[in-house]
Amino acid sequence: MTLTTPPSPTATAVPPNTAGVPALGVNVTGLRCRECGEPEELASSHVCSWCFGPLEVAYDEALLASRVSRERIEAGPRSLWRYGDLLPVLSDDPATRIDLGTGFTPLRPAPRLAAHLGLRELWLKDDTRNPSGSFKDRVVTIALSAARALGIETVACASTGNLAGSVSAHAAAAGMPAYVFIPHDLERGKVVGAAVYGANVVAVEGNYDDVNRLCVEVADREGWGFVNVNLRAFYAEGSKSIGYEIAEQLGWQLPDHVVAPLASGAMFTKIDKAFGELRRYGLVDDAQPTPRMSGAQATGCSPIAEAFARESLDVRPQRPDTIARSLAIGNPADGYYALQVARATGGVVGHVPDDEIVAGIQLLARTEGVFAETAGGVTVANLVRFVEQGHVDRDERVVAVISGNGYKTIEAVEAAVGVTHRTTPALDDFLQALGA
Amino acid sequence: MTLTTPPSPTATAVPPNTAGVPALGVNVTGLRCRECGEPEELASSHVCSWCFGPLEVAYDEALLASRVSRERIEAGPRSLWRYGDLLPVLSDDPATRIDLGTGFTPLRPAPRLAAHLGLRELWLKDDTRNPSGSFKDRVVTIALSAARALGIETVACASTGNLAGSVSAHAAAAGMPAYVFIPHDLERGKVVGAAVYGANVVAVEGNYDDVNRLCVEVADREGWGFVNVNLRAFYAEGSKSIGYEIAEQLGWQLPDHVVAPLASGAMFTKIDKAFGELRRYGLVDDAQPTPRMSGAQATGCSPIAEAFARESLDVRPQRPDTIARSLAIGNPADGYYALQVARATGGVVGHVPDDEIVAGIQLLARTEGVFAETAGGVTVANLVRFVEQGHVDRDERVVAVISGNGYKTIEAVEAAVGVTHRTTPALDDFLQALGA
Repeated sequence: MTLTTPPSPTATAVPPNTAGVPALGVNVTGLRCRECGEPEELASSHVCSWCFGPLEVAYDEALLASRVSRERIEAGPRSLWRYGDLLPVLSDDPATRIDLGTGFTPLRPAPRLAAHLGLRELWLKDDTRNPSGSFKDRVVTIALSAARALGIETVACASTGNLAGSVSAHAAAAGMPAYVFIPHDLERGKVVGAAVYGANVVAVEGNYDDVNRLCVEVADREGWGFVNVNLRAFYAEGSKSIGYEIAEQLGWQLPDHVVAPLASGAMFTKIDKAFGELRRYGLVDDAQPTPRMSGAQATGCSPIAEAFARESLDVRPQRPDTIARSLAIGNPADGYYALQVARATGGVVGHVPDDEIVAGIQLLARTEGVFAETAGGVTVANLVRFVEQGHVDRDERVVAVISGNGYKTIEAVEAAVGVTHRTTPALDDFLQALGA
Repeated sequence: MTLTTPPSPTATAVPPNTAGVPALGVNVTGLRCRECGEPEELASSHVCSWCFGPLEVAYDEALLASRVSRERIEAGPRSLWRYGDLLPVLSDDPATRIDLGTGFTPLRPAPRLAAHLGLRELWLKDDTRNPSGSFKDRVVTIALSAARALGIETVACASTGNLAGSVSAHAAAAGMPAYVFIPHDLERGKVVGAAVYGANVVAVEGNYDDVNRLCVEVADREGWGFVNVNLRAFYAEGSKSIGYEIAEQLGWQLPDHVVAPLASGAMFTKIDKAFGELRRYGLVDDAQPTPRMSGAQATGCSPIAEAFARESLDVRPQRPDTIARSLAIGNPADGYYALQVARATGGVVGHVPDDEIVAGIQLLARTEGVFAETAGGVTVANLVRFVEQGHVDRDERVVAVISGNGYKTIEAVEAAVGVTHRTTPALDDFLQALGA
């Protein structure tokens, strides 16, 4: 034992952290193409070998129907693994499931923000409270658990921040070596927030698209599990837990309207998928209407909102330029599916400029005491517009998804807030400053 | 409704956030001097009018004995208010209780850190997961609820960071105006982390002691509720919830040994107080031995450890000089009581230099995926020494209290960690960088 040279994770050093992980059975039959429906074997692959469409997880639906119940969920752990029956489980061995207490974050009532907006009922799905401070912990937990079941020892990702921190944290707790690939000019805070966990931090001379391309090549050659490349089918399923949690925390009721941020569009579509599963498996009353799903983008990266405004499903790539870096995906992989969901459920997709994002962060902090990163500001600022424009009805039960913690992007609000009074330690000076 | 000028909290604007707050009865009879035992009326006062000793809350112990049960706690909310019967409740009105989902943070198993240290069983009380990212949310929740019950409209604090953020967040959610007093040279991140919630941020030309002196004068004159001055008796009680949670989360068992950081010493003594109450009210088996309480300080501010080494209860004030700024109290108000607790329970008090604090942060992050602020590094680094020195027994069930989130003090580890590989986007270049 030595303190001065802390160990980096190695694949075999000590057992992973699996205490409290529930008994679950294998519930997937393989992968399946989302476009042509062709089945594929369970593996670290993400593209259909027939039509090059994206792959998704194929569940044993009869098993799920026989097993899933409110009681079984409520008896589970206080993490997203309480919904383990509905998430991809690739192995019976509990050591393949990684649980850092990710998910089952608070669904907080927001009465002061609701009053400000003139809404009857507003809730915040508060993912600022996840272990590494963002909803990415949900998808990473599932992807790394799949990697372990598939016998993959080394995990990796292409990231501009939140994902790098989340992969590094979960890999450390699981004792898996990790490589996180980032653009070379990333903010120092985000580099530190990944490197502190002992991950290998690879700075790539190029932008996020360059980083991504390199990662696809490395994945093919090294056999590493890239959570958002060759493990994407499993990874994306993790976001369904947001939908399950909203319903359970509302007392097994669906909300009327959900407003969520859009980057790739995957989280948005998976929340909608979760609501469908809750009805199919009898966890909520099948007679409840489908919640309306509305998406929030930043004007500086709004390809999905732009397509929505054109009444098209055809997303035109953009070159991102916004302070909301965690949403800055100019060519969103699931944009097409997100547009379908918004249309089918009667939702809308909007966008707001950077100054409204900052004002949205402040509005949320000042009314509810929740400090969100830029993505949360995007969600709140779009919600304000949706209410003003009549897209959100004042009598709806609304849930806003707050996807990341503001302490990770302090710089976004630095120019807007600060010291309000200056004084010497003398009481008279303070009283004068107060009156001024 | 307008987005461009977010409202700052006012005392009467909209109702506070009290959904889910449980029904609780008034359970306090007044205040009482910790030294001479003299009773005082329930008020915003903190010093005995007879002997100038510190005041503490006096509970209606017969009421508590008749009411407290495991079942009642387990049926409560997922916050520290599940222990509401054991915390000061000054009013029947649920609107006086503020609940942002503070407390009931995970008690995480730490098998990889335990294996590294050679311990049989180690747990982390993970207060990085509180709403504003530190254990201060616990004491602020209780202090602001007391303020509301006492009819105090404006709340305040003297702070060097974590407390300012916590008071600002809770005051915002409760719709109470807040003033946070800070030294003028505080890091920008900590200023932003309080100002974003709409609090008045008062920068005082002077050090923390100057700030504190001004606050005592302002409290006397303005009738504001300073959480760590005239509301301190209520405030300090909030830390008891850490002890209740540890026991409940261990299945209503006490641990063998707790290692916690020491600043004023109040949190440390309140955890010990909680363990005593759990036995007194039959929540844990009365035959279980009292947990050993060991305290962790930074060498650059170690007045309690220094007194412990001298085998004295007399704390000699120090001038702090350490990166662990959240623990940098040179004249700790509860140092005497903390020393008594450490001695009575068979614990120790140690200190570690700044380089070991940084290594402790890294060790925790690399083994368990938990990124702690400097105070967490102090706790882990002291734990390493305690094991090496034989103060912590390898067969004990040990709990380490991790009191704050590392994303709030990124600068502490900035020099120690960073990019590990640099490459162009070409695969060959990356493979070369990897091999190098």
